[in-house]
Amino acid sequence: MRKDRRKFLGAAALGGALAGCASKEGAVEVTEEPSLLGKPVGAYGERSPFENVKRHLNDTKTPQAASSRTPLHQLHGIITPSALHFERHHSGVPHLDPAQHRLLIHGLVERPLVLTVAELKRLPSVSRVHFVECSGNTGSEWSPKGAPDVQRGFGLASCSEWTGVPLSLLLAEAGLKKEAKWMLAEGADPCKMSRSVPVEKAMNDAMIAYAQNGEAIRPEQGYPLRLILPGWEGNINVKWLRRLHVADEPFYTKDETSKYTELQSDGKARIFTFEMDAKSVITSPSGEQKIGGPGFHEISGLAWSGRGRIEKVEVSIDGGKTWKPAQLQEPRYSKAFTRFRFPWEFTGVETIIVSRAVDETGYVQPSRQELIAARGTNSQYHNNATKPWRVAADGSVTNVEA
Amino acid sequence: MRKDRRKFLGAAALGGALAGCASKEGAVEVTEEPSLLGKPVGAYGERSPFENVKRHLNDTKTPQAASSRTPLHQLHGIITPSALHFERHHSGVPHLDPAQHRLLIHGLVERPLVLTVAELKRLPSVSRVHFVECSGNTGSEWSPKGAPDVQRGFGLASCSEWTGVPLSLLLAEAGLKKEAKWMLAEGADPCKMSRSVPVEKAMNDAMIAYAQNGEAIRPEQGYPLRLILPGWEGNINVKWLRRLHVADEPFYTKDETSKYTELQSDGKARIFTFEMDAKSVITSPSGEQKIGGPGFHEISGLAWSGRGRIEKVEVSIDGGKTWKPAQLQEPRYSKAFTRFRFPWEFTGVETIIVSRAVDETGYVQPSRQELIAARGTNSQYHNNATKPWRVAADGSVTNVEA
Repeated sequence: MRKDRRKFLGAAALGGALAGCASKEGAVEVTEEPSLLGKPVGAYGERSPFENVKRHLNDTKTPQAASSRTPLHQLHGIITPSALHFERHHSGVPHLDPAQHRLLIHGLVERPLVLTVAELKRLPSVSRVHFVECSGNTGSEWSPKGAPDVQRGFGLASCSEWTGVPLSLLLAEAGLKKEAKWMLAEGADPCKMSRSVPVEKAMNDAMIAYAQNGEAIRPEQGYPLRLILPGWEGNINVKWLRRLHVADEPFYTKDETSKYTELQSDGKARIFTFEMDAKSVITSPSGEQKIGGPGFHEISGLAWSGRGRIEKVEVSIDGGKTWKPAQLQEPRYSKAFTRFRFPWEFTGVETIIVSRAVDETGYVQPSRQELIAARGTNSQYHNNATKPWRVAADGSVTNVEA
Repeated sequence: MRKDRRKFLGAAALGGALAGCASKEGAVEVTEEPSLLGKPVGAYGERSPFENVKRHLNDTKTPQAASSRTPLHQLHGIITPSALHFERHHSGVPHLDPAQHRLLIHGLVERPLVLTVAELKRLPSVSRVHFVECSGNTGSEWSPKGAPDVQRGFGLASCSEWTGVPLSLLLAEAGLKKEAKWMLAEGADPCKMSRSVPVEKAMNDAMIAYAQNGEAIRPEQGYPLRLILPGWEGNINVKWLRRLHVADEPFYTKDETSKYTELQSDGKARIFTFEMDAKSVITSPSGEQKIGGPGFHEISGLAWSGRGRIEKVEVSIDGGKTWKPAQLQEPRYSKAFTRFRFPWEFTGVETIIVSRAVDETGYVQPSRQELIAARGTNSQYHNNATKPWRVAADGSVTNVEA
């Protein structure tokens, strides 16, 4: 491996650099050399003015009921910067004063509770790294054409370190009645986005989160409180959480009947399809990028599963004929992005690259053909098919069908 | 434990909340209920206008040669938001164009290299979570009085997910000559901040980082390139890295002779004290906070070691007479912040709380008395003593000596 890397480096990647480097020590001068004092220290930092990575916004007349997509191809590691976490709002981001906000827990409980944010912060807390993914993510890929790039195709998924109070602790305090089986989770946005949550999940790994990546949750992610249901579809991770109403059956809200159900080819609809299936995608190189010619390139991407840890990611550089294991960034969190990396020497001959994830339950990410055979093409949700990218002889990367 | 928590919740923490909650289901109304559409989706997010957490700036006439401190008491989990990562500059933050920036590797190498940022990004990469701590952090605590709060006392430490190229890969490509033992690492700031780095560390776990917490390194952290030497004092993690000059001996730069050495009580100075010793501090509750009266409080804080993983953190709630293990947030990264948590019932009687870290080498964080016995008080660097906080009967928290 070391030997291969050196060959790549010497032969190609560093070729240009080496050519521009004088051979005698001391004869090399690096031009850039500021001589004036730079900027002073500051209270809250900003990124470099040379950086312009941004979320992708749909062209829409109702940007309050829309989505924005994370630029996965421009990010590194597994943490999504909070400023670039994807958005999907149904009535815009409410302006909530944390001193006024309350969380109500009522219904089939012994002791209804109203909690302030300050009270929640005083309780035992946990921090965990988890992805959140809209179940509509990758909806573009039901069509053979698909989205032109990874941001538009896969950008409704992001990953953060969330901190909050285990919901099980609050429910134990409230005292669940024995008939309690479901609860309504309701947001404080104008449309009162609401979903039915099984008590079993709420008692398992659910969290009332108040922090994201070290600081307060961002407004567009649910400030001041968000329900985090690790590994479950984004929409049920209710933002601006104001109410949990415990009941003995689901509520069949508009947000889980008119939307977030999946019409199958037999005319029946799947409902309450909470878990996000294992998925992966190569983010570099990916659609609409152009790589710098033959030589060494690191293939890199992300894999995640709503059912636990990613166990393995395989990469094919010949359109799926042969597969080799990628290197996984450690430690691998459960229900979180896992970064994979794969060394690749691009020979300048057109080829197709694709990744395939396996999670700790043994579930293998299906191809698009396999997924359609199982589910048909009526649904726009829960597409987790593998994603091939074509790399042309000139290094330009496109959708296979483009 | 569950029983204890329920008692705490019922008796105290939730007492007020429960009192304000009507007993009949349906009779409870949460007042806050926005009815107008909220904000639309956006390209790059900002925090809530209700949030004002910020770095602490020293009162100085030269804010270009100064520091700013991370508000550890207001953060959650282990990731420091990039906007709140501490700063320590010697001539301000330079304005560097990544398209113009170069990294030169020369001296005792077979093949000098000049690398662009784009070339570096094409190479095999790694992402790892590591703390960076100024060796002057906690310098205030050599004095019995100490800093009044954890931000001013301990805020020159932060923790990020760094992504970059292993330096060993570049040095293998450049070809180290057999006499190569040290290298000068030089920044592109006006003062050309420079430090001598042993080749052994460079070949071990050093990284040329270009990303921090998922996006490009922030300007004040070294944009576009920073040398990351995991676990070593902040100053040697050279920002705005422009040059590595390989040699057979250290360079004895001004930044490692006039500064960043440690005068001992016998008049001799320690030099090249690179590794940061194991350290911990309770961040909540901490100095200048006031907790909300008797009842349950979660004690929480951070521990880290330059020599590897944190193995154990113990907490004392009786001024060091007895110690109990705290819960550690998993997974624990090597040379990274580890969050610890400890459930505590404050009885309303004045007491002293303190934490103590043990790292995977078995090293135990010393008390202030033990540290001074070993090193005297002439140095301002590398103070890693345990930090007791006094909690008064009214819940106000201060330095023990305040």
